[in-house]
Amino acid sequence: MMPEYVRKKLTLDFGQVTDYIVRRIREYIEESKKEGGIIGLSGGIDSSVTTILLSRATNNFYILLMPTSSTPQKDIEDAMKIIKIVNGENKYSYINIDEIINEFSSIVNISDKIVIGNIKARVRMTLLYAFAQKMNYLVIGTGDKSEIMLGYFTKYGDGGVDVLPIGDLYKTQVRMLGNYLGVPEEIVKKPPSPALWEGQTAEGEIGLDYETIDSILYLKFEEMREPEEIAEMTKTSYDKVIKIINMVKTSQHKRLPPEIFRLSGRAINSDWRYPRQWG
Amino acid sequence: MMPEYVRKKLTLDFGQVTDYIVRRIREYIEESKKEGGIIGLSGGIDSSVTTILLSRATNNFYILLMPTSSTPQKDIEDAMKIIKIVNGENKYSYINIDEIINEFSSIVNISDKIVIGNIKARVRMTLLYAFAQKMNYLVIGTGDKSEIMLGYFTKYGDGGVDVLPIGDLYKTQVRMLGNYLGVPEEIVKKPPSPALWEGQTAEGEIGLDYETIDSILYLKFEEMREPEEIAEMTKTSYDKVIKIINMVKTSQHKRLPPEIFRLSGRAINSDWRYPRQWG
Repeated sequence: MMPEYVRKKLTLDFGQVTDYIVRRIREYIEESKKEGGIIGLSGGIDSSVTTILLSRATNNFYILLMPTSSTPQKDIEDAMKIIKIVNGENKYSYINIDEIINEFSSIVNISDKIVIGNIKARVRMTLLYAFAQKMNYLVIGTGDKSEIMLGYFTKYGDGGVDVLPIGDLYKTQVRMLGNYLGVPEEIVKKPPSPALWEGQTAEGEIGLDYETIDSILYLKFEEMREPEEIAEMTKTSYDKVIKIINMVKTSQHKRLPPEIFRLSGRAINSDWRYPRQWG
Repeated sequence: MMPEYVRKKLTLDFGQVTDYIVRRIREYIEESKKEGGIIGLSGGIDSSVTTILLSRATNNFYILLMPTSSTPQKDIEDAMKIIKIVNGENKYSYINIDEIINEFSSIVNISDKIVIGNIKARVRMTLLYAFAQKMNYLVIGTGDKSEIMLGYFTKYGDGGVDVLPIGDLYKTQVRMLGNYLGVPEEIVKKPPSPALWEGQTAEGEIGLDYETIDSILYLKFEEMREPEEIAEMTKTSYDKVIKIINMVKTSQHKRLPPEIFRLSGRAINSDWRYPRQWG
């Protein structure tokens, strides 16, 4: 469970948070010399919140709904609610990706749900970037801090984006922000899922609810507390605390550019500290 | 042109370079707890050299040939020569990706060769990762230092890999290494091309040969010389030197993880300096 102490720490002024993120999206689009932003909307809390923030930052937004036959109908209905909220009725495309997925799985000759799940995420990334290039838009990511820290995303799939507006907000905070922004209650409360296969939920796979996960992540990586203390504060087993910490450590490669073996005096990864907007 | 001064600086002991890269590939596969490496072989110098290095690092290597109808037949023949050199006759798959590309381009409703070229690169990444996951292999990248610095790759396409063994060698050095490793002369001499569309060559697009490009990159970013001096040393126009420098600067986002807007005391990108192998 989430100790009140942590809830207080994570409860921000979500009016200020909204203004800040909306302003940063607008600035980032301009700095990148693009004309707008495109986003994949799944009907989950993360993409719903990010779509609303994007729509406040610019009128030049575009939405892709990219379901497969395993996407729950409820999610598609929820996505349409968000499209209505942002007046996006003529700024979206609905693309069923089943055929492309079947094409891939017949070539790779595989039915493993995790491999196919990752193919879905990468196909969606490929579609987002194709539309983005056509429209000279940025690809807006929807990952939150909990997922990014846990490595609970597909490398170069839903992790393959240009910018992550809610990337410094834990899932618990994204739900608070969703309430503030007027996201329908049932979307805010829905168990989060990458929906890469039927019935998949993050909390089911990890075996902990996000409030507990976020408390562990916050207490360990922002307050540097010891696992024993964290287990006590969150009323979680020591082993589960260690499991969460190890998920963060073993997924470090997913948050970094590819490894380059250093041979020169100045290798790109290790010796380059140039800023993103560099001249 | 490449001044002799620069040629001397870039001419390494390619026996030592080979041993070092082969050892690092082997170590990196072990550190990542994978069983081998998979690579996309196009028949160009970069992927040919990297395939040979990979084959020396482990017997657990696998090769994907993923041509389209615009892939020159000569490239496919050259790729088969490399497969022979590494005794990979039963360690490769030949996948024509035309159908998948057509599926994408009909959905995105586009015929623009650059957009389609990027779709090809991302489809290849998706296939490499699907096979890699099936085999518990790493995806071995083939980008060299010149392309990575110029941003001359597809974000989350040929740039979407786990490791870049020749990522700290300029194209000129990769050619030297190719000679050392016994890559057939005609592959070493072939004008480099991502082959994303018919007749595409990097040097054609950039308007300079790689020896000159590499000299400019080296003199500017490793010796911090002024553009005027570089223009004189390489007998290139001042404007072309500036063009190369700007290509490096404006592609900085392609070498970094997605931007995250900082809201907390410890945001993932800006405040995390944890190593790749972290616990």
